[in-house]
Amino acid sequence: MSNRTEVNDYGEFGLIHHLTKNIELQNASSILGVGDDAAVIDHFGKQTVVTTDLLLEGVHFDLAYTPLKHLGYKSVVVNLSDIYAMNATPTQITLSIGISSKVSVEALEEFYDGVYIACEEYGVDLVGGDTSASQKGFIISVTAIGEVNEEKVVKRSTAQKGDLICVSGDLGAAYIGLLFLEREKKIFLESPQVQPDLENESYVIGRLLKPKARKDIVEFLEQQGVTPTSMMDISDGLSSEILHICEKSGVGCVIYEEKIPIAEDSRNAAYKFEIDPTACALSGGEDYELLFTIKQDDYEKLTLNEQISVIGYITEADQGAKIKTKGGNTFDVTAQGWNAFKK
Amino acid sequence: MSNRTEVNDYGEFGLIHHLTKNIELQNASSILGVGDDAAVIDHFGKQTVVTTDLLLEGVHFDLAYTPLKHLGYKSVVVNLSDIYAMNATPTQITLSIGISSKVSVEALEEFYDGVYIACEEYGVDLVGGDTSASQKGFIISVTAIGEVNEEKVVKRSTAQKGDLICVSGDLGAAYIGLLFLEREKKIFLESPQVQPDLENESYVIGRLLKPKARKDIVEFLEQQGVTPTSMMDISDGLSSEILHICEKSGVGCVIYEEKIPIAEDSRNAAYKFEIDPTACALSGGEDYELLFTIKQDDYEKLTLNEQISVIGYITEADQGAKIKTKGGNTFDVTAQGWNAFKK
Repeated sequence: MSNRTEVNDYGEFGLIHHLTKNIELQNASSILGVGDDAAVIDHFGKQTVVTTDLLLEGVHFDLAYTPLKHLGYKSVVVNLSDIYAMNATPTQITLSIGISSKVSVEALEEFYDGVYIACEEYGVDLVGGDTSASQKGFIISVTAIGEVNEEKVVKRSTAQKGDLICVSGDLGAAYIGLLFLEREKKIFLESPQVQPDLENESYVIGRLLKPKARKDIVEFLEQQGVTPTSMMDISDGLSSEILHICEKSGVGCVIYEEKIPIAEDSRNAAYKFEIDPTACALSGGEDYELLFTIKQDDYEKLTLNEQISVIGYITEADQGAKIKTKGGNTFDVTAQGWNAFKK
Repeated sequence: MSNRTEVNDYGEFGLIHHLTKNIELQNASSILGVGDDAAVIDHFGKQTVVTTDLLLEGVHFDLAYTPLKHLGYKSVVVNLSDIYAMNATPTQITLSIGISSKVSVEALEEFYDGVYIACEEYGVDLVGGDTSASQKGFIISVTAIGEVNEEKVVKRSTAQKGDLICVSGDLGAAYIGLLFLEREKKIFLESPQVQPDLENESYVIGRLLKPKARKDIVEFLEQQGVTPTSMMDISDGLSSEILHICEKSGVGCVIYEEKIPIAEDSRNAAYKFEIDPTACALSGGEDYELLFTIKQDDYEKLTLNEQISVIGYITEADQGAKIKTKGGNTFDVTAQGWNAFKK
């Protein structure tokens, strides 16, 4: 009798850890491997940064409401976001796609249009890839490569007690955008004659379908002479990401609910679904903003930038990861968002 | 009315060309992009080499007869083969997989066992990746990175008239192995009580399920001080690959059927299927041997190595790509193999 453990028993991160925990890096040039946003490879002063993401139809995107041009754009941007999260500059990507026979060349061209728009916007070159038939569904695999001076690499594991916790832009919008599109899809399937009602939700839908990688933030920090003490991008929601930083750095944190940046459009949209905007920011994911920590001494240098919010500070590990609510309560941060997720 | 062109109208290479032909490389570090086995990125003397491949269940492999450990091994090796084909040394890989809920952790461990065996054998580090749910089928995406001194990079586009055409190892076996496994699968599905009859076919089946990347050949050439004038790996069959070299280099070629290396086991196995072993070598694919050209002056340096066969020479473009048969006839080389494929 062979044992059988279900993949679900681990969860994604547990599974990756389980499968990769015994890796021993062999090359002197492999500075950083599995476990951060990207891998770092030393090349005589400049370091090469590599990251990869798989996007699958029906899992990561729904072609019922995702225009192919947006999909191509987003497939690139989500990988570049990982490169910026290392404080690096993306330089190249490779792109592999698997496509079923129902996809036309024109549809693929639209997809590639979006890819090339992203490449131009961020100054990266598409340098390789693979195209294959797929039996079912559209499969996208992007690998992004970047470079960074050795001393500028910023990992998840180097936050220290007393550091300030910062996020760029605003959070939660992409998840709320997803709720709208899922609702309209359902209505359309039930009553195809009903026109979609999305006019007032362009902000949250735009955030889902056309996210930005925060090149501007990385460049601003560089101009100000600020190197974050830790950094990652927010792809799975603020809660999940701050827990990664706390765990990897061996620290705790305090986050203030009232400091979490949420756009007015996102708040209004969330209320239509009767959900808490803060819960969306904590657990929503897909915002692709940057979460980073800085030394307190660097605080003054960031105040000019309205795109950066200080939302809390790093504590010692034994104090745990906490969120202080507007109402004065303190909760543990959990990867599913804190318990206010279900209102 | 929107036009619709079918993907099949282009074929894979035509489609890639169609979708990538307008790329303009933006970074000074992007030395070589789409169109060769791997991309080359300059890093101050040493160049980084990157390649990527997508492997899809039901398209590239059949889990009915592919052990997962072999699959993991092969997924890595086919990418490393592309790195060696640039005359480079692989150093890192990233691996992304999409898995359905029917895959157990134990099965994944077997797959990763094979990945790690390949990593150790070839001295590469797994430095990143992504794991995702898939709605259907096992999806594997590997990106391999290597390094090479700037002056040692070997492309497909630099073969010259008079160069000798060489191949490593022997050809055609993997395709014949595939024929056996497909036959046994069919028999099993029709009559599950019949035991598979594969004992005498271990060579051809091994060549399909556990291919090698020709690290040894690249190292041998280096030791002998021979830099090939062009090189690529044979993943789609000798015909298809030599045509790539001819087209990219703007040359023609003459290949001698009698010089094409085919193992005795492969010949015997091919005859059981009543197919021509030469046709298998020309059109079979998946052998992952190296096809390369050398200057005539370097010929003497290769004669000691039994793993290298000289099979022909490069001519001017207007002479076309020709194969001279044992019977004294001359045919055009075609990407489907020459017309003897159907005996």
